[in-house]
Amino acid sequence: MIKIIKIGGNVIDNPERLKEFLKNFSALKGDKILIHGGGKEATKLSERLGVETKMIEGRRITDAATIDIVTMVYAGLINKRIVSSLQSFGCDALGLTGADGNIIKAKLRPPVPINYGFVGDINPSDINTPLILNFLNLGLTPVFCAITHNGEGALLNCNADTIASSIAIALSSFTEVKLTFCFEKHGVMTDLNDENSVIPFVTNKNFQSLLDSGVISGGMIPKVKNALDAISKGVLEVRICNDSDINGEGGTIIKNE
Amino acid sequence: MIKIIKIGGNVIDNPERLKEFLKNFSALKGDKILIHGGGKEATKLSERLGVETKMIEGRRITDAATIDIVTMVYAGLINKRIVSSLQSFGCDALGLTGADGNIIKAKLRPPVPINYGFVGDINPSDINTPLILNFLNLGLTPVFCAITHNGEGALLNCNADTIASSIAIALSSFTEVKLTFCFEKHGVMTDLNDENSVIPFVTNKNFQSLLDSGVISGGMIPKVKNALDAISKGVLEVRICNDSDINGEGGTIIKNE
Repeated sequence: MIKIIKIGGNVIDNPERLKEFLKNFSALKGDKILIHGGGKEATKLSERLGVETKMIEGRRITDAATIDIVTMVYAGLINKRIVSSLQSFGCDALGLTGADGNIIKAKLRPPVPINYGFVGDINPSDINTPLILNFLNLGLTPVFCAITHNGEGALLNCNADTIASSIAIALSSFTEVKLTFCFEKHGVMTDLNDENSVIPFVTNKNFQSLLDSGVISGGMIPKVKNALDAISKGVLEVRICNDSDINGEGGTIIKNE
Repeated sequence: MIKIIKIGGNVIDNPERLKEFLKNFSALKGDKILIHGGGKEATKLSERLGVETKMIEGRRITDAATIDIVTMVYAGLINKRIVSSLQSFGCDALGLTGADGNIIKAKLRPPVPINYGFVGDINPSDINTPLILNFLNLGLTPVFCAITHNGEGALLNCNADTIASSIAIALSSFTEVKLTFCFEKHGVMTDLNDENSVIPFVTNKNFQSLLDSGVISGGMIPKVKNALDAISKGVLEVRICNDSDINGEGGTIIKNE
């Protein structure tokens, strides 16, 4: 059984919270994989360098200057901080982009209708599953940032939630996989100001009504879509929960019904 | 037999030259490892961010802001550019810092007599040799930048030449190793303006007189010291040559006599 945990930007932006999470993650028994998002560091660095951050519908436009910045921040600063911190807790972490070992080969997103720049799309067949299994067999814990490549020398910015679900689906052909999306909230909530309003289950049946009612909106839409995709394609358990709850059972369970 | 190649900053700073080098490196048969220095990108980024670059005797002082910058540039931008470029040439590269897989555990350099900040010192016993051999057995080509860690959560800036010689010495206990230091010159030269003035051999015997006469000076001193250390501790062949000559026999051969 392999546990795959994805952590979001708000956890990464809070050093104390990140450290606590990494300590708990290190304590998880068995094979595990961490996927991390970006947080605000890339935007802050862009500002300091006078590089304009362009967003369309909540998604970053990754021009040439921006792919350099996100590569520095995600693959450099954040990934190596996480790896060295995990090492200090006794977890033998190995930091990875999709270019390393050709472990994720992405396709440049078509520039029509919106040109997102150096952005890659992936699906489970793009994952080099044997190499991930080899790393796990060596006792290593892969730590992925959301930078991949196209195999032709270009680095591409990808969605970390999609990387998490794609790796989970790909590995499900070989073994049981549990996928957990961790973030600062306690799950999918009907009222963002009320931690007790967590929806216990999201299924393909109630997803559309949750979309229509606005309960699932913004950045939560692709997260839940990735989660539903994972559970429908063989992942044993998918959960969206708080970063303090990786050993628990709280949050929103994604069910395949 | 394992070939270990170290490339210096001047090659990295020239995109066309770097690409040509990486193409030639990809074509090398058999097990191989690449170690890369930093180049001027970190200094340029420091300037853009208004972070002062402090040097003492040609060595960078790595304060808290600077370790973040070199981690971004060396472990992020340069390492991943090299990895994705090698992948495009069919070389299955795996980018690494010393923190990844705890592959190099460094010691913080003592702050007396000079406090270099987040700078690490290593020796061959700090190299996780079995893991490097495992990666090579998987068909991967490790690509190291000069960032390591201390095992307690801190990232440290190291000397890339020392990483190259330490890895070469450590691997020499298991198999034959050839170590090549590549840079923009054609070897150790008596006259820096005359490419025909390359000294064919450096040995422990002629090293002191080359130092005294000023032929070996500045940044060349630690490079040659690392090379002499490697050849005296079991590395089969050590050469200092031009980055265009990795398949040849030119440059300065380091001899153990």
